[in-house]
Amino acid sequence: MSNEPSPPPAERGGRDPSDLLQAVDDKARALARRLLAETRFGALAVLEPGTGHPLASRTAVAPDVDGAPLMLMSGLAAHTAALAADPRCSLLLGEPGSGDPLAYPRVTVVGVARRLERDTEAAGIARERYLALHPKAALYADFGDFAFWRLDVLRASLNAGFGRAYALRPEDVLLGG
Amino acid sequence: MSNEPSPPPAERGGRDPSDLLQAVDDKARALARRLLAETRFGALAVLEPGTGHPLASRTAVAPDVDGAPLMLMSGLAAHTAALAADPRCSLLLGEPGSGDPLAYPRVTVVGVARRLERDTEAAGIARERYLALHPKAALYADFGDFAFWRLDVLRASLNAGFGRAYALRPEDVLLGG
Repeated sequence: MSNEPSPPPAERGGRDPSDLLQAVDDKARALARRLLAETRFGALAVLEPGTGHPLASRTAVAPDVDGAPLMLMSGLAAHTAALAADPRCSLLLGEPGSGDPLAYPRVTVVGVARRLERDTEAAGIARERYLALHPKAALYADFGDFAFWRLDVLRASLNAGFGRAYALRPEDVLLGG
Repeated sequence: MSNEPSPPPAERGGRDPSDLLQAVDDKARALARRLLAETRFGALAVLEPGTGHPLASRTAVAPDVDGAPLMLMSGLAAHTAALAADPRCSLLLGEPGSGDPLAYPRVTVVGVARRLERDTEAAGIARERYLALHPKAALYADFGDFAFWRLDVLRASLNAGFGRAYALRPEDVLLGG
């Protein structure tokens, strides 16, 4: 992957932001799906209870069967209390390497987090998939104050590098539709 | 830096989240200041105009003279429109290496973003400091739709690794008070 950004467009003044969106094609879909499938952690944005202030924190993730992000969260963490009060959130996935951090692809998955109730089939599948990627989490995954959550995807924003932005629907980023 | 998480406490059930906060000491302050001083990019959480949905996106950063994060943002970017409508935001700084992503230190700087008006002294200093860290941004930093923004710090949350969380005041993370 190149770490050189594409040169920005020579003329930009006065344009509408939607002009910068690219038409969604199979290459964009494949890149977004790869980011969801391969990324082990991300930045979760939630709303602080009471104030509504947006808060970002690191969270480990694993892909559910359809690619939607799964998270294992402690009931003692601030973001967990936030999601219990308002489940709206987004998750930035895709880490840069060396060089210009804005030249590397990343996707923001926008949606609603849903707690998977213990001893359900969904929680069992989540546990298996998450621990396959994060084996050390077996140390605490079954503690009473931890639970698996799934980010139900409403839409996603893919940025494939400088000036290459795509607005994606759930069926563009999830598998099997 | 070790990539092994500390073992979680053996007993956690029923505790209050504030029990997990550590007393702020000089080591925690130094770590937070180092993260602000050295990190080149972060995850910015903002509120989507109209809906209030929290959105996370990648942004390149550089430290202002006192360590507060400086960002160079296009007026065409969704997060810029969001900050113009509601300047409340937070910025997650500190990237993990290999191994457990939750074992690496990171800080969430919580505050309010402020656009630095062009041709002011503050904007000039921001430009110099930002381009020193991101020289390729000279290609577009002076375009009419770009501007420097500063994150005025209200507070910060430091996570120094599994279970080691600190609530920091601005004077704990900024230089020179």
